[in-house]
Amino acid sequence: MAGNIFGHFLRLTSFGESHGPLIGGVLDGFPAGLEIDVKALALAMEKRRPGKGAFQTARNESDIPELVSGVYQGKTTGAPLAFIIRNQDQRPADYDKLEQFYRPSHAGYSWDAKFGFHDPRGGGRSSARETAVRVAAGALAAQLLAKYDISLTAFTEQIGNIRIDYANSAIDAASVAESPLRCPDATAEPEMNRLLDALKQDGDSTGGVVGCFIKGVPAGIGEPVFDRLQADLAKAMMSINAAKGFDYGDGFAAAAKRGSEHNDPFTGTENGLRPATNHAGGILGGISTGEDIFFRVAFKPVSSISKPQQTADKSGVVRELAIGGRHDVCIVPRAVAVVEAMAALVIADHMMISGRIPRNII
Amino acid sequence: MAGNIFGHFLRLTSFGESHGPLIGGVLDGFPAGLEIDVKALALAMEKRRPGKGAFQTARNESDIPELVSGVYQGKTTGAPLAFIIRNQDQRPADYDKLEQFYRPSHAGYSWDAKFGFHDPRGGGRSSARETAVRVAAGALAAQLLAKYDISLTAFTEQIGNIRIDYANSAIDAASVAESPLRCPDATAEPEMNRLLDALKQDGDSTGGVVGCFIKGVPAGIGEPVFDRLQADLAKAMMSINAAKGFDYGDGFAAAAKRGSEHNDPFTGTENGLRPATNHAGGILGGISTGEDIFFRVAFKPVSSISKPQQTADKSGVVRELAIGGRHDVCIVPRAVAVVEAMAALVIADHMMISGRIPRNII
Amino acid sequence: MAGNIFGHFLRLTSFGESHGPLIGGVLDGFPAGLEIDVKALALAMEKRRPGKGAFQTARNESDIPELVSGVYQGKTTGAPLAFIIRNQDQRPADYDKLEQFYRPSHAGYSWDAKFGFHDPRGGGRSSARETAVRVAAGALAAQLLAKYDISLTAFTEQIGNIRIDYANSAIDAASVAESPLRCPDATAEPEMNRLLDALKQDGDSTGGVVGCFIKGVPAGIGEPVFDRLQADLAKAMMSINAAKGFDYGDGFAAAAKRGSEHNDPFTGTENGLRPATNHAGGILGGISTGEDIFFRVAFKPVSSISKPQQTADKSGVVRELAIGGRHDVCIVPRAVAVVEAMAALVIADHMMISGRIPRNII
Amino acid sequence: MAGNIFGHFLRLTSFGESHGPLIGGVLDGFPAGLEIDVKALALAMEKRRPGKGAFQTARNESDIPELVSGVYQGKTTGAPLAFIIRNQDQRPADYDKLEQFYRPSHAGYSWDAKFGFHDPRGGGRSSARETAVRVAAGALAAQLLAKYDISLTAFTEQIGNIRIDYANSAIDAASVAESPLRCPDATAEPEMNRLLDALKQDGDSTGGVVGCFIKGVPAGIGEPVFDRLQADLAKAMMSINAAKGFDYGDGFAAAAKRGSEHNDPFTGTENGLRPATNHAGGILGGISTGEDIFFRVAFKPVSSISKPQQTADKSGVVRELAIGGRHDVCIVPRAVAVVEAMAALVIADHMMISGRIPRNII
Repeated sequence: MAGNIFGHFLRLTSFGESHGPLIGGVLDGFPAGLEIDVKALALAMEKRRPGKGAFQTARNESDIPELVSGVYQGKTTGAPLAFIIRNQDQRPADYDKLEQFYRPSHAGYSWDAKFGFHDPRGGGRSSARETAVRVAAGALAAQLLAKYDISLTAFTEQIGNIRIDYANSAIDAASVAESPLRCPDATAEPEMNRLLDALKQDGDSTGGVVGCFIKGVPAGIGEPVFDRLQADLAKAMMSINAAKGFDYGDGFAAAAKRGSEHNDPFTGTENGLRPATNHAGGILGGISTGEDIFFRVAFKPVSSISKPQQTADKSGVVRELAIGGRHDVCIVPRAVAVVEAMAALVIADHMMISGRIPRNII
Repeated sequence: MAGNIFGHFLRLTSFGESHGPLIGGVLDGFPAGLEIDVKALALAMEKRRPGKGAFQTARNESDIPELVSGVYQGKTTGAPLAFIIRNQDQRPADYDKLEQFYRPSHAGYSWDAKFGFHDPRGGGRSSARETAVRVAAGALAAQLLAKYDISLTAFTEQIGNIRIDYANSAIDAASVAESPLRCPDATAEPEMNRLLDALKQDGDSTGGVVGCFIKGVPAGIGEPVFDRLQADLAKAMMSINAAKGFDYGDGFAAAAKRGSEHNDPFTGTENGLRPATNHAGGILGGISTGEDIFFRVAFKPVSSISKPQQTADKSGVVRELAIGGRHDVCIVPRAVAVVEAMAALVIADHMMISGRIPRNII
Repeated sequence: MAGNIFGHFLRLTSFGESHGPLIGGVLDGFPAGLEIDVKALALAMEKRRPGKGAFQTARNESDIPELVSGVYQGKTTGAPLAFIIRNQDQRPADYDKLEQFYRPSHAGYSWDAKFGFHDPRGGGRSSARETAVRVAAGALAAQLLAKYDISLTAFTEQIGNIRIDYANSAIDAASVAESPLRCPDATAEPEMNRLLDALKQDGDSTGGVVGCFIKGVPAGIGEPVFDRLQADLAKAMMSINAAKGFDYGDGFAAAAKRGSEHNDPFTGTENGLRPATNHAGGILGGISTGEDIFFRVAFKPVSSISKPQQTADKSGVVRELAIGGRHDVCIVPRAVAVVEAMAALVIADHMMISGRIPRNII
Repeated sequence: MAGNIFGHFLRLTSFGESHGPLIGGVLDGFPAGLEIDVKALALAMEKRRPGKGAFQTARNESDIPELVSGVYQGKTTGAPLAFIIRNQDQRPADYDKLEQFYRPSHAGYSWDAKFGFHDPRGGGRSSARETAVRVAAGALAAQLLAKYDISLTAFTEQIGNIRIDYANSAIDAASVAESPLRCPDATAEPEMNRLLDALKQDGDSTGGVVGCFIKGVPAGIGEPVFDRLQADLAKAMMSINAAKGFDYGDGFAAAAKRGSEHNDPFTGTENGLRPATNHAGGILGGISTGEDIFFRVAFKPVSSISKPQQTADKSGVVRELAIGGRHDVCIVPRAVAVVEAMAALVIADHMMISGRIPRNII
């Protein structure tokens, strides 16, 4: 009950700190019989490190998850699927001088209020390092979903005030993968790069928005009332570091629309009825409609900035604080992989709850 | 695992359908020793029925929850706190003619895909009737929270394209209570009324946004990583019928901001440090800071409209559908009470998880 | 987290007190599509009241569960399957004079330590009245299991020092049903009757043992490590009032056996291998083998006796206490139905976890 | 939902297989602020390996848990308390020849039915190797409980037909620790040794019973109805490999007793009332009374025996099977540590649920 276990049926337990020896995850409930593609797993980890230099932290994380439980002769066994990721680059010294301050808008302040303690070596459990476990677990879930023809594509929709326009569902996964910023829009990406460059010069940071499409989810997934598919997706997304908002389908924009405008009428097809439009974002009444699921996640600007801030130190005296060390200018390109991973966990969980993926052996 | 139980420590089980004999809820984990204010409970139920006429459905729901378990001589006993609310106004006949269609953007379509069935008598469990249970349970949680000086105020922030501006935390609970639209802004409310009037004439509907402030939550509430306070709030809100988006603090607006602009510097006070501003919305790293918690929930326009829609009937033939019966023009004024109730459940749950409210007896 | 919700996937929420207006239960996760046999449900409730007079309390409980949620036109809908049972015979007056004492070996003492309170009107939630909810819920689960050819038969194995011998699996369900003591042994039953008669004269009580066979469970049900089938059965049984012990297969007797004696060798059949004997009791490594599951539950003597006891009153003075009112001489004949019901819930839960009973619609 | 997570509030996730690279555990919910005694942890692991030779398997398991998360500068941080234990002695070759058979009364048969697979290298997750994780986690929980003056002592009560008599609560922890068989009775132990010696000669095995006392648990721990303290203890114990029965207080013997004999009258003390006797075993109505908690766990004889068995091989032909390799003659002396560990987890969990051990920081 301390927040390190996620999911209903397929449950991820996460452990480890940013500056401990390792981090890891345990997936309980993963069915037997899936051949794990170890290369694809390693590749998925790379997605979390898109920036080959410029705007992400230089920390060297090769981040290859070692599967230590639940796989025999390359296949899952039904035992807990566990992995560890060794921390290779522990430089706690960077953080020592920060001990006189709580960094503004950083978790240290509230975690101290809770535990009388926060790990000075880079955030401990509140560090974004923890999201590597999510990405690994999500990649394993995505391999399971792929067997059921479900695919997920998250992408950078907005960085700072630069936002891409796109037709519903028309995001191309290959373009996302090729873009260092995970932005599939060839016009917007250079602008985003210029913005990030300027911010870096200025020692400042920015926020942004990640979008995500899920294709292939059959109709009938999700539970009524409290465990609606969008509720579990929202929880998953809002549990990611720096996430500030979630919406799906037309989302916040739906608030200003009329029913006659927002409703998705039905059309007859050879396979029966289906909605002709998808303002709903693939979910009605908490349950999937069979259409693409679409949602967005807003992220705040990175709180650790080198630009000097006027803030009280722990003794209450206002002083200038300039945070050194390695920090992203914008978390969004990295967060794309985390959003995709968490979505994979939620969808795999609900596929299992609904019995569409068997519990014991696939 | 079918989505009718909510919460970690303080758990609400919800049951009953819109056109069955009754609906009800069971709060497991509610501590012993709280004197229940039955009048306040009845009053809270009224909040869900703000519109004395114009823009909400005319359905007569006196909605007095009968406490059937967990109270002895006016005080809670530690036994499950259970209540039932009788359905007094069952008119399934309204819905019979709709059986040839799935209503566009209504849960009937996806629920049929799941259960091979949906209750034609007004939605069953997918009906907004179910939210009466949430409001009753939330009112009980709010009475518990009041003992710990925690108060919640939800309000109408936006209806259609009419939106109020307000300074952070400056919403007056009394103004909200007095407004039939739950809108504390004396300028905006008449505009909203005019909009709703026009839509009603047109047989159309609109969406909107509910805001909510929570005051008095001590620092240190919420769990790291997956059960962050904002994650549980997001899940709670996105489980409400018609909710399409959630954000907190600066929310989606934070995406376009710079770190230097969004960060909340600390200031020294006689009681120690506290953030000088509250862009964070009262939560850092998933854990409360002691500042006001603030979040917003977007709602889509009501899908049942009397304005004719072109949509395929169940045989696949596109026909004109005009939905009669009682339907809100905008759900937002009603949703205010539901948002407040769900927030109360989440905060009470986390107060108990953190041990700030004792499990056994207060 | 307060103990009133049972199960992993199929979850029972129980509420209500012995002397409140009603008790009830909510089964969340029950699949859609089962035609409920209301008569069989009423009959199952009768099983909890086997003694037409002599050795059970005279309380008049007609105990017909009213289905208030989750059933439409006679079939389950996938919505929470909820029922209420009205309390018809509230005589709190019986208990008033007991308020000067804690009854020896009664829950009042420990519940007061927890909640600062116990319901003087007959035990509240600690009353055996609460088991009526379990029996109703278990009867619904048993109807579901019957569709999958799984049957359960609990019976009286021992009352006081009178114990029946029986060959493994050779209990006849019809003989159990006909026996007022739920004892299928025509020799032992009259002896048990004589013992109970003598104890009644003496104002005393006795304990006993309930056995239970479950037939038709397919191989492969149950989860490794912590949620082994026997672990969940043990929890279910030890949660019943007055239960003091649980064992399965050869149980405690296995402790004195040799491996060569206790092992079940395999034999080849036309349907493949199966164990030639069943010392295991139908479960190996926590997972069903396909053989009959067999377990036993020991019950302590009823603590409320009219025979005078020397015990300290609440002021600490030792006085004579003679407890009047209606009390069973032996709980075992009633407990048979409760054991069967709890077993049905556990097996249905694990059938659903393993996907053998579909989640959404059968 | 696959059985590898245990507990309500303090939750243990277990992972790893007997012949993989490592096994491990994650304790979520462990409070911050406990100084971990690493030496005591290592010592506790030794308890699981009591027989320095004779009757336990010769497998060399140094079994030092490495704390990889949740500890900083020797103290717990509130982050998940995770540890790994490397497997140092992987000899899968021993098991290869067994692949033609299902071993009688071994989990391989039922696990294959579930997962279409079982790990031939010594049982995988069904191996007793998994219990090392429980012992490590339980030792950490016991260190937490010691801060609250709660101690646990499990011991060998019976091996085969040799059983010790002891007055309630009069077991001496030091005598248990000194005995290689974990049997505090100087008369019975040599007899047990002789029995084990004879069985070893004979290539056979035997079962036994472990008793356990818990001292210092305050009154008021445990939850009503389903999560009674004895129900959670029963589940914990019946989840241990080879456990066949559980009882507490007078247990199965209570079945033959009269109420007047079994009831515990109250006596007045300077600290208020308390039961004068403890037939109840320290729990009434599911909630602790403040008296010693006492329970027993029966274990079956080890199923892997070198004595030849007539059993069908996987093709259905009955052949002689003689199982070589390292196997205990009796699991009981090892199981003592596992019983103690699981009890520590249950008590710590309920101490936290009841708020007697704080959630955030001790």
